[in-house]
Amino acid sequence: MISFESDYNNGCHEAILKRLFETNDERATGYGLDDYCASAKVKIRQACGKPDADVFFLVGGTQTNATVIDAMLKSYQGVLTVETGHINVHESGAIEFGGHKVLTLPSHDGKMDAGELDQWLHDFYADPTYDHMVFPGIVYITFATEMGTIYSLAELQTISDVCKSYELPLFIDGARLGYGLMAEGCDVTLPQLADLCDVFYLGGSKCGAYCGEAVVFTKHNAPAHFFTIIKQHGALLAKGRLLGIQFDTLMHDGLYFKIARHAVELAIRLRDAFIAKGYKMYSNSPTNQQFVLLDKTTIARLEKDFVFEQWFPVGDLMNCRFVTSWATSPDDVDALIAAL
Amino acid sequence: MISFESDYNNGCHEAILKRLFETNDERATGYGLDDYCASAKVKIRQACGKPDADVFFLVGGTQTNATVIDAMLKSYQGVLTVETGHINVHESGAIEFGGHKVLTLPSHDGKMDAGELDQWLHDFYADPTYDHMVFPGIVYITFATEMGTIYSLAELQTISDVCKSYELPLFIDGARLGYGLMAEGCDVTLPQLADLCDVFYLGGSKCGAYCGEAVVFTKHNAPAHFFTIIKQHGALLAKGRLLGIQFDTLMHDGLYFKIARHAVELAIRLRDAFIAKGYKMYSNSPTNQQFVLLDKTTIARLEKDFVFEQWFPVGDLMNCRFVTSWATSPDDVDALIAAL
Amino acid sequence: MISFESDYNNGCHEAILKRLFETNDERATGYGLDDYCASAKVKIRQACGKPDADVFFLVGGTQTNATVIDAMLKSYQGVLTVETGHINVHESGAIEFGGHKVLTLPSHDGKMDAGELDQWLHDFYADPTYDHMVFPGIVYITFATEMGTIYSLAELQTISDVCKSYELPLFIDGARLGYGLMAEGCDVTLPQLADLCDVFYLGGSKCGAYCGEAVVFTKHNAPAHFFTIIKQHGALLAKGRLLGIQFDTLMHDGLYFKIARHAVELAIRLRDAFIAKGYKMYSNSPTNQQFVLLDKTTIARLEKDFVFEQWFPVGDLMNCRFVTSWATSPDDVDALIAAL
Amino acid sequence: MISFESDYNNGCHEAILKRLFETNDERATGYGLDDYCASAKVKIRQACGKPDADVFFLVGGTQTNATVIDAMLKSYQGVLTVETGHINVHESGAIEFGGHKVLTLPSHDGKMDAGELDQWLHDFYADPTYDHMVFPGIVYITFATEMGTIYSLAELQTISDVCKSYELPLFIDGARLGYGLMAEGCDVTLPQLADLCDVFYLGGSKCGAYCGEAVVFTKHNAPAHFFTIIKQHGALLAKGRLLGIQFDTLMHDGLYFKIARHAVELAIRLRDAFIAKGYKMYSNSPTNQQFVLLDKTTIARLEKDFVFEQWFPVGDLMNCRFVTSWATSPDDVDALIAAL
Repeated sequence: MISFESDYNNGCHEAILKRLFETNDERATGYGLDDYCASAKVKIRQACGKPDADVFFLVGGTQTNATVIDAMLKSYQGVLTVETGHINVHESGAIEFGGHKVLTLPSHDGKMDAGELDQWLHDFYADPTYDHMVFPGIVYITFATEMGTIYSLAELQTISDVCKSYELPLFIDGARLGYGLMAEGCDVTLPQLADLCDVFYLGGSKCGAYCGEAVVFTKHNAPAHFFTIIKQHGALLAKGRLLGIQFDTLMHDGLYFKIARHAVELAIRLRDAFIAKGYKMYSNSPTNQQFVLLDKTTIARLEKDFVFEQWFPVGDLMNCRFVTSWATSPDDVDALIAAL
Repeated sequence: MISFESDYNNGCHEAILKRLFETNDERATGYGLDDYCASAKVKIRQACGKPDADVFFLVGGTQTNATVIDAMLKSYQGVLTVETGHINVHESGAIEFGGHKVLTLPSHDGKMDAGELDQWLHDFYADPTYDHMVFPGIVYITFATEMGTIYSLAELQTISDVCKSYELPLFIDGARLGYGLMAEGCDVTLPQLADLCDVFYLGGSKCGAYCGEAVVFTKHNAPAHFFTIIKQHGALLAKGRLLGIQFDTLMHDGLYFKIARHAVELAIRLRDAFIAKGYKMYSNSPTNQQFVLLDKTTIARLEKDFVFEQWFPVGDLMNCRFVTSWATSPDDVDALIAAL
Repeated sequence: MISFESDYNNGCHEAILKRLFETNDERATGYGLDDYCASAKVKIRQACGKPDADVFFLVGGTQTNATVIDAMLKSYQGVLTVETGHINVHESGAIEFGGHKVLTLPSHDGKMDAGELDQWLHDFYADPTYDHMVFPGIVYITFATEMGTIYSLAELQTISDVCKSYELPLFIDGARLGYGLMAEGCDVTLPQLADLCDVFYLGGSKCGAYCGEAVVFTKHNAPAHFFTIIKQHGALLAKGRLLGIQFDTLMHDGLYFKIARHAVELAIRLRDAFIAKGYKMYSNSPTNQQFVLLDKTTIARLEKDFVFEQWFPVGDLMNCRFVTSWATSPDDVDALIAAL
Repeated sequence: MISFESDYNNGCHEAILKRLFETNDERATGYGLDDYCASAKVKIRQACGKPDADVFFLVGGTQTNATVIDAMLKSYQGVLTVETGHINVHESGAIEFGGHKVLTLPSHDGKMDAGELDQWLHDFYADPTYDHMVFPGIVYITFATEMGTIYSLAELQTISDVCKSYELPLFIDGARLGYGLMAEGCDVTLPQLADLCDVFYLGGSKCGAYCGEAVVFTKHNAPAHFFTIIKQHGALLAKGRLLGIQFDTLMHDGLYFKIARHAVELAIRLRDAFIAKGYKMYSNSPTNQQFVLLDKTTIARLEKDFVFEQWFPVGDLMNCRFVTSWATSPDDVDALIAAL
C-alpha cells in the first residue's frame, strides 16, 4: 500500500533522526531553556528577518492555536475565522474550552475575504447592541488553508490592513506553512508574511518533524509570561530539546523549505495527471493537498493499492484528498498516476 | 560537568532511539490509532494484570493531570491532594484553567494521610453549608511523591478504602512510577497499584522516554469520548506513533523497570554516602530523588563540577536535590561521592 | 413619551408589589429555601401538570441559559441553536465562558427546522472525523423566539422527536414564554410544552416580575447538585424570597397568562393597524414583539412621541421593533396608531 | 420565633419599598442605563470622595466577586486571600470556574496580616520555579470579615502599601461594608477605604436592600468593557433600575450607614450581655455578627424561641452565630438577653 493519507503518517526527516542520535547523550536543561532551542530560535528569527521576534516551541497544532489565541484575547473577546477554519471544526472545542467564542465568516475555498472581514467589523460596531455581544479580539487565518489554497501577497496585505484599522492582531496558523510558502505560484516570502501578521507558527508536525510548532511573535509582542501560559495549557514539554533539535535541523540550510518544495512538486505532478485524465478537482490547490472528485468505482479500484481519505460527497462523486509530504517519493506518485 | 539536575535532561533510552530508526520509513495512521500504540497498550495491560483496562497516550505530565482530572470531575467538584501535590504547585493553575478547585490536605513528606483524608471528607459532609462549597470529586496522589517518598501497600490500601467509602475515584500520578515501584523497600507491585486505584499513569518523560505518559483506566472506566477530551485539551499527538513506539519499547521485557531500578540503586548509593559523610538528609527518600541539606561552602565547592537544584533554605542550610536517571552512570555517582 | 422599547422597562406588576409590601417584615431563610419559593414551586408544577418536576429560581435570562446549559453538557459537548438564538448573539459569550461551543443551524424567522436539525445530526455522526469535533449535547430553542414567532404543537413535537432519537435533551428558553403561550393562534399548552422538553423556564423578568426565571426540569431530571451549580455560576440569590414571592404571585390564579394575553392583544391590534396603513411587517409575529419596516421620515416623526428600537436596515428601510407588555395600556396603542 | 439567623432574612428597608412603589409606573431603559442608576452612582461617588470612580451595580456577592476578580486577572494569575475568605470557602468554586486559582494565606480571625502577605510575595518571586506556578494578580480582603472583625486604618494602610509595592490591585469585598464602617471602634472612613484600594463594593443584599452590590473602581480604573464582562458572567440585570432605586435610596441622607449603625449597636448590646452572663465569645467582633460558644443545654433552650446558626464545635461547646440587621428591633435583643 502506498499512502497519500496525510502528511503526518511517516516518522521524521532523516536529518532530524540523525541529529537526535548525535545529541542523545548530552545533558540539557528542561523546558526549552537548552542550547538547541536557543540555536533554533536564532535561525527562525533570521529566516523571518525579525531579529527581535519572540519564539516559543509547542508540541502540536490544536494546542498551539488554543494557547496563542487564549493568551492574546481578553475574556470578552472572540476569534474571527472562516467557517472551515481548523479551530472552528476539528479542534473539539479547544478554543471554547479556554472561554472564547469562535466568530465565523464565509469560507472561500478555505480563505477569508478581506472585504467581508471589513464589513463584518463595520457591522459589529454599527450594531447598537454590540456590547451585549462577543467582541472580535484577533483574526485567525491558515496558510496554507485546510483546502490546500494560499493567499496572495496582495490578499494578505489587505487582510492585514483591515486588521490594523481595527487594531486587531492577525494570527496565521502555519501548520502547513512550508507547503504554503513553497506552493506553486506563491508570491509571499517568509519575511513578508512575518511583516504582515502579529503572530504565526512554523508547523513542524506536518512538515518533517515528529512533533512541534514554532510560534513567532513577530513584533517582540509575546504576551507577558507566555511561558507560564504555555505551562498552564499543558503545552510545555519537559524535554524541550526534542523540539529545539528538530527545528534547529529543519531551519538549517533551508531544509524546511526544501522538503516542502519536494512535496509540492509531487502534488502538482499528481494534480496535472488527474486533470489530464479528465478528473475534476474539487479545489484549485497549489500545495501538497489535492482534492479530486472520484466515483465509487474509481475509489474502489484505487483503494486496493493506495491509502487516501474520502472527505464528503459532492453530488454522486466523493471529494477525495491525496496528500504528499517530504517522505513521498516520485515512485509513489508515478504508481498512482499509472493507476488512474 | 556531571548533571544530577533532573531525570529529564538526557535524550531517550538508546533502545527507543534504535526503534525510532527502524520504524521511521513505515507509514502509520495518526492520532494513536497505529499498530505501535496498539502493541504498547497490550503490553501495559499485561503488566498491570488488567486485560480490560483503557489505555491512552498523552505527551506530558501537567497535560495528563489536567485532562484526566477535568474529564473525571463534574463542574461543581474539585480534586483533593496534599499541599505539595504537583497539581497544586507547579502546574501554573492548569486544573483551575479547566474550572476546578484544588482542595488541599497536609503533606507528610509529600504523602497523604488516609486518616486525614477520611476526617476531611467526614467534616465536609458534616458541615451544614457544604452545598455552598466545592465538592470533592477525585483524590490525587503521586507515586513516587515530589519528595521522593513512596506509599507502602498498606497505606495505599487504606487510602483506596477511604476513597471507596466515599465513592471517590483515586488517581495516581505516576510521572515517576518506575522509580516508585523499584524503590528501596517498595512492597507495591504494578498489578496491586492498578487494583487499588481507578486511573493512573506510567510516566515516560522522566523514565527513559523523550516524552509521553500512558494513562490507564484500570476498570475499563475511561470517561465517554475521552479521545475527544484529549483533543480538546490540546493533548492529542498527530504522530501518535511517537508515543506508541516509545512505550512499546519501554514495556518490552521489563525495560521500564530495569532502568528505573538502575537509577534507584545509584540514588541509594549516593544517599548512603551522604549519610556516611555526616550530611543530613531533608527526607528519607528510597527513590531516584535525594534531598540533602548543604551549607553554602559545600554547595559552592560541588557546583564547580556538578549540576543540581537548590530547592529552599532550611535554617542556615539549603535543601538540595540530586536526581539520578536511567542515564546516570556509576561513574557519575562515584565522582560525586568522591567530591563530598 | 410613550415607550414600546421593551418588555422590561416598567417596574413589576402591582400585585407583586403589593405582596412584597405584605411580606416585608416576615423573616425567611435565604437561598430559596423559604415558604414563598416552596409555594411557587407547587403552583408551577401544577400549571405544568408535572407534580414531580424540579423547579429552581434564578435571576435573569443569560444567567439561566448559561447555568442550565453548562450543567447539562459534558465538557466535550456543545449546544445546538439557530443562528439568531439569544445564546449565540446577545449573551456576550456566556456559554463559551463556561467552556462550550454554540453550534448553529439556519434560523427561519427565529425558529429551528426539525428536518434541518435531523440532517445536521445525521451528517455529524456520518463524518468520519466527528470525534475531532464538538459533540452536540443539548438542543436549545426559544419560545417565543427573538423574532416574536412561535412553534406550533406539531413543530415542537417533531423537534422533540428528533431530540429523542439522538438522546439529546431539549431546552426551551422561555424568557417570553407567557407571550408565546398566549400568542395569537398558539396551539401549545404549558403541559404539552413541558411534556415535549426536558427543561424550560418561565420567564419573569419580561413577563411582569422585577426579575426572576423559573427553571423547570420536567422529568425530575435536574442535574445532581444543581443548587451548588447555581451558586458556582453566581446565580443564587441570598434573599431567594424575592423570586419566590414574585412567582407565587404570578402563578396565582393565572395572573402570568392574563397579563401576557393582554400584551399580545395590544400587539396584535398594533400589527393590524400597521398593515392596514400599508406598512410592511418584517416578520409575521403573533406575540408581543412586532417588527415593522419604516422609512427615515416615519421614524423621525414617531420618535418625537414614542420610544422604540431600530434593529437593522432592510434595503432603504429600517426594521423597527415595537414591544408591548403587561404595563402597556390600550391608550398607549391608540396613540401610536393615531400617529402612524 | 425571633430570628438572629442572618442579615438577609427580611425583605428590604421600608424606604426602598416606598420608592419602588412610587417609581413603579415609570418607564426606564434597561441594563442599568436608567436615571435611578445614574443618580445612585453620583451619590456613591460623593460618599467615597471619588468623583471619577467607575460604579457598576451587580446583583449578589458571589457573582460580584467572580466578575470583578476574573475581569482584573490575567489568565496566568490567581487571587490572594486568607483561608477563611468567602471566595475560598462558600462560593462553590466560582473563582475557579472562571479559570483562576485562589491562593491562600493564614486567617487571623478572618483578617490578612500585611507582614505575611509581604513575605508570601517575597517568597514567591524568590522561588526559582515561580514561572511554573500561579502568579499573584490581585489581593482580596473582606470588610467586615466573615468572622465579624474589621481592619484598623493602620492595618489597611499597610496591606495597601504591600500591594502597591508589588503592583497588585487591592479588592475589598464589602458585602457587609456598612456594618464594618459603623463598627465599634472603627477608625476607617469610606473615603479612606476608597483611597486605599483599587476596587471595592458596597453590599446591599445584607445591608437593607433586597439585592444588589455596588462595585466601585476607585481610580477610574474599571477594566475595558466591564459592562460586557458583567453580561458574560450572567450578572447584568435587565431591569437595572431595581438596583439603581435601591442604592439611590440607601445612599440618600446616609440611610445605608444609619441602618448599619443600628444593627451594630444592637449586636454590641447583645455581646456585652453574653459576656456579662459569663459566656465565652469565639471572636471579638465589633460588628453585627456575634460568635459565642454555647453548650448543648443552652442551645436547646434558646432554640425554642430564637433562630441562630451553629457553625462548628470548639471542644465540647458549639460556636454559634447571632446576627443583627437593620430589621432587628431592640425588643428582639432584649428578649434574647432575658433568655440567656
